[in-house]
Amino acid sequence: MRADGSLNLSLVPAMVRHLKDAGVTGLYLCGSTGEGMSLSTAERMELTEAFVDACQGELSLIAHVGHNSIAEAKQLARHAAKAGVDVVSATAPSYYKISRCETLVDTMTDIAAAAPDVPFYYYHIPSLTGSTISMTAFMEMAGGKIPNLAGLKYTAPMIHEFHALQSCCDGRFDVVWGTDEMLLSALAVGAKGAIGSTYNCKAPLDRKIIKAFDGNDLEAARELQLEAIKFIEIVLSYPFHAAMKSVLTRQGVECGPCRLPLENLTSEQENRLHAELDDARISNWLFNTPQKSQPGDAQSVALAGKQQLLAQD
Amino acid sequence: MRADGSLNLSLVPAMVRHLKDAGVTGLYLCGSTGEGMSLSTAERMELTEAFVDACQGELSLIAHVGHNSIAEAKQLARHAAKAGVDVVSATAPSYYKISRCETLVDTMTDIAAAAPDVPFYYYHIPSLTGSTISMTAFMEMAGGKIPNLAGLKYTAPMIHEFHALQSCCDGRFDVVWGTDEMLLSALAVGAKGAIGSTYNCKAPLDRKIIKAFDGNDLEAARELQLEAIKFIEIVLSYPFHAAMKSVLTRQGVECGPCRLPLENLTSEQENRLHAELDDARISNWLFNTPQKSQPGDAQSVALAGKQQLLAQD
Amino acid sequence: MRADGSLNLSLVPAMVRHLKDAGVTGLYLCGSTGEGMSLSTAERMELTEAFVDACQGELSLIAHVGHNSIAEAKQLARHAAKAGVDVVSATAPSYYKISRCETLVDTMTDIAAAAPDVPFYYYHIPSLTGSTISMTAFMEMAGGKIPNLAGLKYTAPMIHEFHALQSCCDGRFDVVWGTDEMLLSALAVGAKGAIGSTYNCKAPLDRKIIKAFDGNDLEAARELQLEAIKFIEIVLSYPFHAAMKSVLTRQGVECGPCRLPLENLTSEQENRLHAELDDARISNWLFNTPQKSQPGDAQSVALAGKQQLLAQD
Amino acid sequence: MRADGSLNLSLVPAMVRHLKDAGVTGLYLCGSTGEGMSLSTAERMELTEAFVDACQGELSLIAHVGHNSIAEAKQLARHAAKAGVDVVSATAPSYYKISRCETLVDTMTDIAAAAPDVPFYYYHIPSLTGSTISMTAFMEMAGGKIPNLAGLKYTAPMIHEFHALQSCCDGRFDVVWGTDEMLLSALAVGAKGAIGSTYNCKAPLDRKIIKAFDGNDLEAARELQLEAIKFIEIVLSYPFHAAMKSVLTRQGVECGPCRLPLENLTSEQENRLHAELDDARISNWLFNTPQKSQPGDAQSVALAGKQQLLAQD
Repeated sequence: MRADGSLNLSLVPAMVRHLKDAGVTGLYLCGSTGEGMSLSTAERMELTEAFVDACQGELSLIAHVGHNSIAEAKQLARHAAKAGVDVVSATAPSYYKISRCETLVDTMTDIAAAAPDVPFYYYHIPSLTGSTISMTAFMEMAGGKIPNLAGLKYTAPMIHEFHALQSCCDGRFDVVWGTDEMLLSALAVGAKGAIGSTYNCKAPLDRKIIKAFDGNDLEAARELQLEAIKFIEIVLSYPFHAAMKSVLTRQGVECGPCRLPLENLTSEQENRLHAELDDARISNWLFNTPQKSQPGDAQSVALAGKQQLLAQD
Repeated sequence: MRADGSLNLSLVPAMVRHLKDAGVTGLYLCGSTGEGMSLSTAERMELTEAFVDACQGELSLIAHVGHNSIAEAKQLARHAAKAGVDVVSATAPSYYKISRCETLVDTMTDIAAAAPDVPFYYYHIPSLTGSTISMTAFMEMAGGKIPNLAGLKYTAPMIHEFHALQSCCDGRFDVVWGTDEMLLSALAVGAKGAIGSTYNCKAPLDRKIIKAFDGNDLEAARELQLEAIKFIEIVLSYPFHAAMKSVLTRQGVECGPCRLPLENLTSEQENRLHAELDDARISNWLFNTPQKSQPGDAQSVALAGKQQLLAQD
Repeated sequence: MRADGSLNLSLVPAMVRHLKDAGVTGLYLCGSTGEGMSLSTAERMELTEAFVDACQGELSLIAHVGHNSIAEAKQLARHAAKAGVDVVSATAPSYYKISRCETLVDTMTDIAAAAPDVPFYYYHIPSLTGSTISMTAFMEMAGGKIPNLAGLKYTAPMIHEFHALQSCCDGRFDVVWGTDEMLLSALAVGAKGAIGSTYNCKAPLDRKIIKAFDGNDLEAARELQLEAIKFIEIVLSYPFHAAMKSVLTRQGVECGPCRLPLENLTSEQENRLHAELDDARISNWLFNTPQKSQPGDAQSVALAGKQQLLAQD
Repeated sequence: MRADGSLNLSLVPAMVRHLKDAGVTGLYLCGSTGEGMSLSTAERMELTEAFVDACQGELSLIAHVGHNSIAEAKQLARHAAKAGVDVVSATAPSYYKISRCETLVDTMTDIAAAAPDVPFYYYHIPSLTGSTISMTAFMEMAGGKIPNLAGLKYTAPMIHEFHALQSCCDGRFDVVWGTDEMLLSALAVGAKGAIGSTYNCKAPLDRKIIKAFDGNDLEAARELQLEAIKFIEIVLSYPFHAAMKSVLTRQGVECGPCRLPLENLTSEQENRLHAELDDARISNWLFNTPQKSQPGDAQSVALAGKQQLLAQD
């Protein structure tokens, strides 16, 4: 965004390049991190088109279309499919909270049907939507009703529910992990993919966690995950979105400010944030090492053919 | 709404007539009750225009413009002002929760500035927005920053905060009560106006509560409020919006179904709801007495010149 | 309590005299305010005996016997009855939260049966016990099962539920208000008694609210209630129990410190608290006017024969 | 417990034998599972003595002494130390919630000092105590103030906080995992010990999870953990404590009913519970295989010398 709050779509190609270099395999557009909910419908459409153009099919693109108005969500889904995204995804509305599984299934059926030829992922994030329905119950009911249901983005700390979801419905759905600070635990219970905010700026670290885990080097994976936890803890002690953007900007990817209702950093906060990152020696790997992933890294992911790491944008 | 979920604006004049007859003095458009959040921006604009046309200035019109996207909220505010509403009002966003008073003030300042010539009311409803900021602190800070700030719609049970708000900032703001089942208590601590969902179908009862209270007949006011509580309790034990619409339809004001994510009543639920209303003898005053208010009623309100009863639509 | 945390029962008579002078008609012993839960069972018994001795039947005494262990609660109930209290009362346990009405009724039946000849009041305070069961449902079920059930101490802001409870079970139970900052609203919907923490130090003010309300002078009642709200707001911005004790001590009733897990005031906090009370001119009526109630006041209560004001100790 | 709710201490030796056979290495007495909070202080003391007698030092014994009254907690700590337990542990009080880290440290310092020669573990279970203080902050502050602080029982799903705690204070504290359905994830981030309710009846399964994890057979560990999740999910859909006792009784360890405020199973519920366990084929390993652990199992634990599995009783 520009200083005046308007979208600066000319920066999209640089963002895409940064993430591709960092070993990210896909992008979740207009999600919680990307301030999707703060954009107007028209802006969400423009942004989606800009990313489709910039990605040229080299990164998977997931368009988040969740909206308090299901009518608008369907419009966004229709548009995203036409624009050429790979996946459509939606949260539950956040104003009227959904408390019954049937209603959630009906609502998602309605949205998914607006883009029937594109795989659909429900985005479970109860801390923001207030919908705390059992995801096992949801998947079992939705599995038979939403023809293009392909999976679930799971953002909650209940790793046992995530574990059970891996094999629910005979394991035919892709259930993706969304709590970055628990990535290692998610891998341990079988996660094949992860979508998260902080992969925007520390994907090389997360890919090292995956690599260490794949190589049975749990000691190393724990050390790396601990670094990730420290980073997230520091960033979370500030207005989260603004702190992430400040880190990305220092990494060379201009991001601009946040929009209301999200807060921006005061310059005092910004200085303190970077001082904390320096003190914790997180800056070493965050800013000083090339974010470009090593060929070896990229390859190991390619070979494994499974682990996906997607940034939420 | 029509059975297919589309808006049926041809019913607006009948709704306006019903409320005018019932002694309601104004309308809060696209609020929590009116499924405002479930409508698209285009629909909210059409609906606003239809009500401005139908009211011809005889009822006060408040346009609710709250939205997860502040950009859309501002667009709605601009439109509503141009369409000719009397007041613009907004909730906090519900996806990204606002936790600091300064941020809430900044956000409301931004929205209110989009309709600078129309009085602005903040709509406080923490159960839906998750923003639990002290309203005394908000009013004190916002009072100096939002030139067109005129008041607050207060929907929470903390009647002592509502009481303190009546005199905060030297009492220059209009703080309106929004929890229908506590109307009598609100009057006791000085409420001058009330905006609520259930006034759509039981305004004559509520006006009797006000009249009894004004006439110092607390015993009668308590009995009447108890009737209101019973009614609300029954309606709340069903999907609330659909139950309200079913009552209004039985009162002769066709309303149609609710949109997702709100639930509709099964026909079994609908039958049970009306049986319960019959058993509690609520149907007597709800359906059998003329909803048209007695001239005397209307007058007492006119004379008092203060107590306002607005339906949320 | 003494500085070392032990009970100083020699101060009990002074406390009783202070409250009698202030127009309080009864005492709720070992409640939330009185740190009842922080005392050992032996101490609760000693304290009860000391108050029975000091009151000589001139104030009603309610012994709170709620405990995480129902076995201990029954022991306390048995002892209190034998010691000669007028009423036994209990909260739900707070560790294992009760979520079903039947279980709450069974639990209270068990406790009440340990003191079968003494009236029993359930103490509803969901913010501390986590038991959010509908009190209407509870009273209807408990009414037929607990022979000595006499009423309910209701500490929650849901004034419509309190209103409905006044007439539930044909009004044969005494439902007492417990949220001091809403006293006027509770009177408006029919409250006949109130038990609260802050009546320990500002009962003369609360009795004036009652008197103004009884005399149909709502304007005056509102002004007085607003004073009460201001006082409570200030006290609540400090560790509550310690702030109350500091106020009582300045009123001449030595109270000593709080026990863990409650916090004491730092001397900086103590100074700031009293400066705030001075600035808000609350000190005028709180400390400078004689706390002794005027004969006229006492009489009006005696004549009304209904309104009870009890301090929670 | 006996049918009349009194403690039946003659069953203690059988319980101890069952757990020893199942490969459990220690016991957490009077915890959340063991209805510790529902027992009187006298009963908690008797129970502790009975277990010390029955264990003869062959199982580690941790006495939970948490209480709403810190005075009682200290008495329990003093007694437990004298009775000969290996560890003393306490939760925060649940009635007055602790919201500041300093106060929690002060409170635990007070309790731990009552048994200064015995290692002390704080028991973090925010879902029951309402104290949601950061455990990293707590350990860093408590580490310098409680001389006998030895560790933490961590019962919450925030596995990243648990991960960070493993290395906090230079890793000198033992941080034990308490959420049984996430055991595998906890192992992945470095858990060395686990204390849990369900280990009372399925410790052999959990020891297999540990063994598979130690042997780098993650596939097997996931399958086994999934069995554990299914079991816990079924048991949690009933009143939890009563369901556990019913399972243990079917395993041959007589347990008796629960005390209020916990609910017992109706016979319909009991039948349904066991039918569900049968249908899910959980009964196969739960009831039909010998619960006695294989010598090999026991050995692998002994050799590893680290992983501890303790039942909460």
